[in-house]
Amino acid sequence: MNRMFIANLLVVAFIVPAAAQDDLSGRYVVSIVWGDGTLYDVLQLEQKGDNLSGTYRGNPLEGTRHGEVIDLTSHNKQGDGDTMHLIAKGHVLTGTDTPFDGSGHIKQPPVLAVTAVLAASPPSAGQTREFVPTQFYHAFSATTKPAMTIMPGDTVHTTTVDAGGTDANGIQRAFGGNPETGPFFVQGAMPGDTLAVHVIRLRLNRDWAISDDYLDGRSVDPSLAVTQKDTGKTIFWHLDLDGGMASAEKPDTHLRDYRVPLRPMLGCVATAAAAAFPPPNSGDSGSFGGNMDFNEIRADATVYLPIRAPGALLYVGDGHAAMGDGELNGNGLETSMDVTFRVELIPRRRTPSPRVENADRIMALGYEGSVDDSLKIATSNMANWLTSDYKLNPSEVAQILGTASQIRITEVADRNAGVAIIIDFDRLKGLAAGQ
Amino acid sequence: MNRMFIANLLVVAFIVPAAAQDDLSGRYVVSIVWGDGTLYDVLQLEQKGDNLSGTYRGNPLEGTRHGEVIDLTSHNKQGDGDTMHLIAKGHVLTGTDTPFDGSGHIKQPPVLAVTAVLAASPPSAGQTREFVPTQFYHAFSATTKPAMTIMPGDTVHTTTVDAGGTDANGIQRAFGGNPETGPFFVQGAMPGDTLAVHVIRLRLNRDWAISDDYLDGRSVDPSLAVTQKDTGKTIFWHLDLDGGMASAEKPDTHLRDYRVPLRPMLGCVATAAAAAFPPPNSGDSGSFGGNMDFNEIRADATVYLPIRAPGALLYVGDGHAAMGDGELNGNGLETSMDVTFRVELIPRRRTPSPRVENADRIMALGYEGSVDDSLKIATSNMANWLTSDYKLNPSEVAQILGTASQIRITEVADRNAGVAIIIDFDRLKGLAAGQ
Amino acid sequence: MNRMFIANLLVVAFIVPAAAQDDLSGRYVVSIVWGDGTLYDVLQLEQKGDNLSGTYRGNPLEGTRHGEVIDLTSHNKQGDGDTMHLIAKGHVLTGTDTPFDGSGHIKQPPVLAVTAVLAASPPSAGQTREFVPTQFYHAFSATTKPAMTIMPGDTVHTTTVDAGGTDANGIQRAFGGNPETGPFFVQGAMPGDTLAVHVIRLRLNRDWAISDDYLDGRSVDPSLAVTQKDTGKTIFWHLDLDGGMASAEKPDTHLRDYRVPLRPMLGCVATAAAAAFPPPNSGDSGSFGGNMDFNEIRADATVYLPIRAPGALLYVGDGHAAMGDGELNGNGLETSMDVTFRVELIPRRRTPSPRVENADRIMALGYEGSVDDSLKIATSNMANWLTSDYKLNPSEVAQILGTASQIRITEVADRNAGVAIIIDFDRLKGLAAGQ
Amino acid sequence: MNRMFIANLLVVAFIVPAAAQDDLSGRYVVSIVWGDGTLYDVLQLEQKGDNLSGTYRGNPLEGTRHGEVIDLTSHNKQGDGDTMHLIAKGHVLTGTDTPFDGSGHIKQPPVLAVTAVLAASPPSAGQTREFVPTQFYHAFSATTKPAMTIMPGDTVHTTTVDAGGTDANGIQRAFGGNPETGPFFVQGAMPGDTLAVHVIRLRLNRDWAISDDYLDGRSVDPSLAVTQKDTGKTIFWHLDLDGGMASAEKPDTHLRDYRVPLRPMLGCVATAAAAAFPPPNSGDSGSFGGNMDFNEIRADATVYLPIRAPGALLYVGDGHAAMGDGELNGNGLETSMDVTFRVELIPRRRTPSPRVENADRIMALGYEGSVDDSLKIATSNMANWLTSDYKLNPSEVAQILGTASQIRITEVADRNAGVAIIIDFDRLKGLAAGQ
Repeated sequence: MNRMFIANLLVVAFIVPAAAQDDLSGRYVVSIVWGDGTLYDVLQLEQKGDNLSGTYRGNPLEGTRHGEVIDLTSHNKQGDGDTMHLIAKGHVLTGTDTPFDGSGHIKQPPVLAVTAVLAASPPSAGQTREFVPTQFYHAFSATTKPAMTIMPGDTVHTTTVDAGGTDANGIQRAFGGNPETGPFFVQGAMPGDTLAVHVIRLRLNRDWAISDDYLDGRSVDPSLAVTQKDTGKTIFWHLDLDGGMASAEKPDTHLRDYRVPLRPMLGCVATAAAAAFPPPNSGDSGSFGGNMDFNEIRADATVYLPIRAPGALLYVGDGHAAMGDGELNGNGLETSMDVTFRVELIPRRRTPSPRVENADRIMALGYEGSVDDSLKIATSNMANWLTSDYKLNPSEVAQILGTASQIRITEVADRNAGVAIIIDFDRLKGLAAGQ
Repeated sequence: MNRMFIANLLVVAFIVPAAAQDDLSGRYVVSIVWGDGTLYDVLQLEQKGDNLSGTYRGNPLEGTRHGEVIDLTSHNKQGDGDTMHLIAKGHVLTGTDTPFDGSGHIKQPPVLAVTAVLAASPPSAGQTREFVPTQFYHAFSATTKPAMTIMPGDTVHTTTVDAGGTDANGIQRAFGGNPETGPFFVQGAMPGDTLAVHVIRLRLNRDWAISDDYLDGRSVDPSLAVTQKDTGKTIFWHLDLDGGMASAEKPDTHLRDYRVPLRPMLGCVATAAAAAFPPPNSGDSGSFGGNMDFNEIRADATVYLPIRAPGALLYVGDGHAAMGDGELNGNGLETSMDVTFRVELIPRRRTPSPRVENADRIMALGYEGSVDDSLKIATSNMANWLTSDYKLNPSEVAQILGTASQIRITEVADRNAGVAIIIDFDRLKGLAAGQ
Repeated sequence: MNRMFIANLLVVAFIVPAAAQDDLSGRYVVSIVWGDGTLYDVLQLEQKGDNLSGTYRGNPLEGTRHGEVIDLTSHNKQGDGDTMHLIAKGHVLTGTDTPFDGSGHIKQPPVLAVTAVLAASPPSAGQTREFVPTQFYHAFSATTKPAMTIMPGDTVHTTTVDAGGTDANGIQRAFGGNPETGPFFVQGAMPGDTLAVHVIRLRLNRDWAISDDYLDGRSVDPSLAVTQKDTGKTIFWHLDLDGGMASAEKPDTHLRDYRVPLRPMLGCVATAAAAAFPPPNSGDSGSFGGNMDFNEIRADATVYLPIRAPGALLYVGDGHAAMGDGELNGNGLETSMDVTFRVELIPRRRTPSPRVENADRIMALGYEGSVDDSLKIATSNMANWLTSDYKLNPSEVAQILGTASQIRITEVADRNAGVAIIIDFDRLKGLAAGQ
Repeated sequence: MNRMFIANLLVVAFIVPAAAQDDLSGRYVVSIVWGDGTLYDVLQLEQKGDNLSGTYRGNPLEGTRHGEVIDLTSHNKQGDGDTMHLIAKGHVLTGTDTPFDGSGHIKQPPVLAVTAVLAASPPSAGQTREFVPTQFYHAFSATTKPAMTIMPGDTVHTTTVDAGGTDANGIQRAFGGNPETGPFFVQGAMPGDTLAVHVIRLRLNRDWAISDDYLDGRSVDPSLAVTQKDTGKTIFWHLDLDGGMASAEKPDTHLRDYRVPLRPMLGCVATAAAAAFPPPNSGDSGSFGGNMDFNEIRADATVYLPIRAPGALLYVGDGHAAMGDGELNGNGLETSMDVTFRVELIPRRRTPSPRVENADRIMALGYEGSVDDSLKIATSNMANWLTSDYKLNPSEVAQILGTASQIRITEVADRNAGVAIIIDFDRLKGLAAGQ
């Protein structure tokens, strides 16, 4: 089965209910637990007398209420429908959902247990929120319970452990493999929107990092492979936070005076990949961002990511004190961090693949299984960006790309390779004037 | 952070204890729950008086017992050790493990809760076991609780749902995305061994399958991309189980008489990828097998897979009634199946990547992010096979590969592409004589 | 500058004239020598009184004749024209051509020396022609003087030297590097047509071949690279022409009894790449065919190639007595051959990339710089074939490709990699009925 | 046959003679014409009485002289020899060479016609030479007659035409396809040495350039391919030589104010690929340099290239007034140039692939059929550089590459893709101290 199967198959329509007492109207967060996963979605209900209407997953909904007993029916555009039977207890609705499959082949659809909880009145936006993680995750999953709900415009201060799971105090807090902080549920975020993550500050919060001394297979030809001896060791680096430089703790002879300027970056920034199975793990990347390991995701950069699941479900992790392009040795200077970011929501804007922007330039990223394929994605991402923001026609896009592109390979040590097409704002000034 | 990070970081040493009453000697299955994962491992204990010895993860162990109170210490080759404090209740030991990190940077190692359960005396091998799945999984994880424990030599009969989660009766049993049956814990299997999975029978157990009508991006050049119109639909196929042919239920004009011979195959056969995070999801493949989608994994084929986690943890799923090379349209004829297989253990044999063998030929597979990289893996896999089994030197290997290889692209529609190097036994006969 | 530049730049319009005495009407082969190259083209002239008309490179032509003095003007669709001044001596016209560049930037177009020779009345088609090569070529060039002119329907018997330049008698006849026999100018062949080359017989004409014992870099991963010792030697093979088997002359221990069935194939079949500079060399392949090294180009196969230059300019060479898929060891069993083929012309049929057909199956090839890109070309080539010959829509094409494709990697040891999409005629029978 | 065949096959040993009158001692340039190629090499002769000794292609030589009649014999390390019969007329020797093949399979080696001309006493090095090209070449061939002989240390001023063959005055001087200026024969350059080409000045010598407005297939994914409409046109650019800016002559609406800073670069710098067939054409690149299209090959850069043929045979061409990374639109701003460079010879230094250096950084290049393979070559090239110049061990190399690399994709529009690994000298300062 292929990677696109899920989008086609998950016609599973999950539908949901309403709360007791007076009025069930409101926005509910719905969860459906089944097998090894949980799906989250949003239900909007309007009650008029005993009649209920609203939407669920973009589909119109209608139903009735008799005391605590609620019946709802929803149909998608193909006319497939399902019926739900729920019981309202305060602002919590529980019961079953029986989706219908229009193919005629699903003889007996699953009867799924659902829970819908009235969303709390959102706090006013623009607040600064503190999040202290206690649990860390190893997949960019849409089926993980949100760790905190935030509003567009909110600023969040939190911390990340290093790729091996160790925190600022040298305490290992989770199994290794890019344990992630989050996920943050962004109020109002829906598939088809874009999430903007403004990185405000990445503060190094300890004085050491770890890295490696081998070369990733993607960067080694046979002539180099045969020379690789005594490599594969873990290298500990001292971070001189005041001096702004890193140096190996026990360097070999020739690296005695070798220094690396500190340039803290976030290796992982991700929205949940899609409200479906199976989710990519925390070593992976793709159109949802993820383990991008791009050394331009630093303070003052904004990362734009497509939203694929209700609430976006933002994950952050895998801080590096510094990293060369490509992470050729398999790891940056891996360390823990204090992370401060602000999120904004751009409704109804489709972002095909991750984008990063800072004061000087725009950067369109592509992450695929080979550098060649990543380049195709990155170029197409940038062409799409120029088309939508500057209204260029294809001929104009080609002329800009041909004369203004900087092309960098961001990452080759992970599951996917990454490529960035970069254009300075200086080059684009004339375009804005020409609109 | 890169994909090899985990192997280095997971120095987490989990150590375990012993049972009360008389004698704690025996083999224990250990589980450690932490954050979003569980690790399984095997502990061997010998009790003499109040003294305990044994092994854990290949490391020697020593300790003492005072009634229910057990203290154990283990050291790896680097001299890193940890201490455990456990309480024995019958044949279950519970308590804590405090691994030690030799780097000097982990200031306070995690205190992990561990449970060790005495392994039941294994049944005699060679039995036929029936397994009826009730839960399906979406990752090839070493941290999933085993669904059944089997012995090398056992034959298992079970069923698989289709890639969308629907079973023989048309009942959707799990979310889509290659839900897997298993995992099966194979007694005695340890990292460094090879698991042989003999596919005895793949019985189609319903008369329909689903597929698609688009072309995967890996197989489309720009000139073809612009012609793709009205594609992306789900196509239902009727399986004529008696006639041995499949045909589209509602074919377009030109496919009215188009028939596809039924050749049932298993899309997914996998051992757990490694006893670490993060696990690959059920759409992925690699050295552990996984979603290989290779149309030679049919009845009478044997699949050899490396073992990376104690018990191997075998998963099967994603049956296809038929599939062309490459799965160019994104899906085979996806259907449910009755699956019968027998497992054998080949101790201390390292298999670098999946291998398949039938009566006529040997097939070395490679699964990577591009076809080019998969070819390198497959060739190296076959070279390794010829070297270990036929004692050939590199010059001889090159001459065989150059004159006898058939090279097929098995799969391009998944996360990884796949390539098979195939050599007929006819060609290898002379070699056997020459040993 | 890129690979597509030439097509844009070579607006150079070369135009040509007519012969004295009575009537200049007829078809002329034109040659223009300039710098390090010669262009060949075809001029059609009609004389009525002193007025001349006709076509050149698809462009209409008009002019006048006064005794031996001829003036001609031609315009392309953009209105760019040029004027020629020629002198007719019998059926040979010589003089100058001054092409005009419409851009306004070419201040002074080159004055090119041209020669046009009246094409001899073609012999009747369907003859058997004998060609004894005395000169061999190392580029698939449209600017090489044709070695023989043949008619569609003609059968040619000729010989090829091995890749190192040695012939049937062990005499080295040319520098190594796939010296080619030809080129054959096919009367009437014009760009936009397809050339069908029916391979009638490939007769091995000596009892030895040479090959190698290393593995090409495209098939080696780092783990295999470090094992390659004592490889890179030339291996001589004995060809048992009666027994139909090849064996190494001095095999290492384990290959003592190793035999390879003889399956003679042509490594190179090519039309001239395009009437422009720079031509691909004889180690290269592409849409024009070339050094495809595909082991299905054997007796009874038909190779379809696009025609890019007037006369097609067919080259053949690089025979192999046998070869595994991929030519993983860098060479097949390289030997000299007697080659018999018949050519046919399919006017106004565009063939995007090479195709091969035999009694059992159709095979669409793709040759590009990576296996991944070659697959895209091959799939698109086959999709185009199914669309044009079976009238399938894109959805139907995807269903056929998904269920009937065999995909082989033909070649990785050359400049380009090659991939073949193969479909058995058995599968396509139903389609023909459905037309 | 594969790309490495030639190196193995061309055992053709060409040997050469001596001049009349008094003393034949001296250095001769030898040429051997055969079929469609010419080989050049260097012969060193010492005459003592009637006895001759010396070297040819690194092999020792001995022979006799009787008046004008000269007989020479040479043997390679395998003991293969050949005999020559020559006649000396002044300082020109002509005659035949009969190489011997040690395989026992070449029954009758070719009798080749050879000519050897005494090399003029070289002028003192360090001169400034003026070269006015009259002929341009479309292959990086070792078999092209040198256009000028220069000394290491010489500075050359010459001109290049644009990729379409047009010069500073708008006169088309050659067929399109990167016509090259040269080749320059560098006295004393031998295979195994490195040629350093210091680019002193690239002066734009006209006020216009041409380019394109499409996107190369390597940079287009299917989603972008379907949007490409009305592209593929030639775009003319005005070069404001005083203002240092380029602008389209007839821009579409949005590019009205779009300006590109002029940064003149040389698209092609190459040594002859190897003294063998078939040579790469002028659109190609590789370890010999060639059509690298790297926008850092500007004034003040030094290009290091391996020497594969006697005299190096340096070609330059394909100037661009400016170019974005990757040449995504298929062409830079293609124009003619005045080119000034100085050559230096670094004896017995092996350079595996092209390198570029300027005042700020070192840049190791890789050119292969895919971006993935080019990255492997570039990384290995840089690792080799750091190892040889800074004496780093593999662990140190990995740490430098991991923390200091910038990785750019230089070129995707040509036959090969290109990747550059770049390291600032600032980072390497500490290393020098550590030696």
